Amino acid sequence: MELTISEVETYLAEVFPQMRGEFQIDALNEEQTLMRLTPEERHLRPGGTISGPTMFALADVAAYVAILAKIGRVALAVTTHCSIDFMRKPQPGVDLIAEGTILKLGRSLAVVDVKLRSEGQADVVAAASLTYSIPPKR
Amino acid sequence: MELTISEVETYLAEVFPQMRGEFQIDALNEEQTLMRLTPEERHLRPGGTISGPTMFALADVAAYVAILAKIGRVALAVTTHCSIDFMRKPQPGVDLIAEGTILKLGRSLAVVDVKLRSEGQADVVAAASLTYSIPPKR
Amino acid sequence: MELTISEVETYLAEVFPQMRGEFQIDALNEEQTLMRLTPEERHLRPGGTISGPTMFALADVAAYVAILAKIGRVALAVTTHCSIDFMRKPQPGVDLIAEGTILKLGRSLAVVDVKLRSEGQADVVAAASLTYSIPPKR
Amino acid sequence: MELTISEVETYLAEVFPQMRGEFQIDALNEEQTLMRLTPEERHLRPGGTISGPTMFALADVAAYVAILAKIGRVALAVTTHCSIDFMRKPQPGVDLIAEGTILKLGRSLAVVDVKLRSEGQADVVAAASLTYSIPPKR
Repeated sequence: MELTISEVETYLAEVFPQMRGEFQIDALNEEQTLMRLTPEERHLRPGGTISGPTMFALADVAAYVAILAKIGRVALAVTTHCSIDFMRKPQPGVDLIAEGTILKLGRSLAVVDVKLRSEGQADVVAAASLTYSIPPKR
Repeated sequence: MELTISEVETYLAEVFPQMRGEFQIDALNEEQTLMRLTPEERHLRPGGTISGPTMFALADVAAYVAILAKIGRVALAVTTHCSIDFMRKPQPGVDLIAEGTILKLGRSLAVVDVKLRSEGQADVVAAASLTYSIPPKR
Repeated sequence: MELTISEVETYLAEVFPQMRGEFQIDALNEEQTLMRLTPEERHLRPGGTISGPTMFALADVAAYVAILAKIGRVALAVTTHCSIDFMRKPQPGVDLIAEGTILKLGRSLAVVDVKLRSEGQADVVAAASLTYSIPPKR
Repeated sequence: MELTISEVETYLAEVFPQMRGEFQIDALNEEQTLMRLTPEERHLRPGGTISGPTMFALADVAAYVAILAKIGRVALAVTTHCSIDFMRKPQPGVDLIAEGTILKLGRSLAVVDVKLRSEGQADVVAAASLTYSIPPKR
């Protein structure tokens, strides 16, 4: 791995200050990235369910972190595509865990599969595929 | 149309209070829904570009509003799928306009095509297809 | 499982006669469906690579078979959506294996994740998510 | 436009001989590409409806042709992603028309929106977004 959890968190805080405190990195290794969201009022829809944009944001940052950890600082890497299926309501009041797996890491494109689950539950709440464009190295 | 802009805005404020003031409805008619986002600090990434989750949220609510206006109050209609392509950086400091067109409105599923553009620009910033599940009428 | 491999193959031959001999079912169990394509001339592009439509067809039938095996004969189940990422060239002259996993099987919608790999290779050639509409039981 | 209909058809026959006679180009201009499929037995499912893989193939080639006409011979351009929604049954025995519009044509990626309709019908049968990777110019 190119970066440790601590280095990634530091870097995220630099380049995405608005996201400070939103997400936590639980694990970063060759096979998988695990990130966690503890839902707050601003993440919810009436009824207490986590909003679509919040789930999209979690999947997106999990993919970004997976790529970042593999190839180092890539502030200019941008999401070009996301396909996401929302399949079940997340459990109210329970942390949402994102499990990211890199399917492809090429010279200019990366594809990451992300599954979102309520902590402690086997069922997938949402499944996403994110494609990132990777800028050429200077 | 089942509801007017004013009725839709009132309804949105009831069922999605967290979204109060986020988005504005510019037009609602048979062919098309137009919604507007005026970007604030919380919508931006460093460098001033609008974040992916913000664009996702705008596309999502434009689709929801298009369906709502056509068939009336549907608080339980939920997004089941979104495919979104991010193609260009939006213009900094310019409102983002979402143009939604219903492609299919069936008994249980609706598919809406949404194009996002910076106001005044012809190029598409992001293009999305959203699928909503429509609950059976009581 | 509602149906055995033999029963599924018989049923497929009945309802999709044009697909006779195209695909083989390697395994059907609770967790996973495995299907195989042995590429012929008609499946290829110049250079010997398997065509996109062929890979789409394999992913699509793998999803259909996974659902069929779980809930029995569903001739009217139809694909409503597919998102597919083509990530690597398949190995020329090697069978293509589809691994399908049901992510959600609801009353009216099913979502299946399908990974395509060249036999004997760990890398994913293509990854797809297919959504099927399931007709209400008579 | 870089190529005429006649030049594109000649080029397609060279690089995709298996597709000879499958599809016809009706129009090629700055805004739009129109292609036509006349359904034959091999394109159909029981009941006479056009198969998903056939519709995928039509959308895919419409996108490829749109790009080809704009930037010239690009045999190595490959589909990297497709999101497709199947929304209505096509009319039996009627030609299927694909209308392709380039949403983005960058240095390395192109995104094309394709709508499929039965000839003479306003309703969209299927809507797709295809992303193509464009190889760097030699």
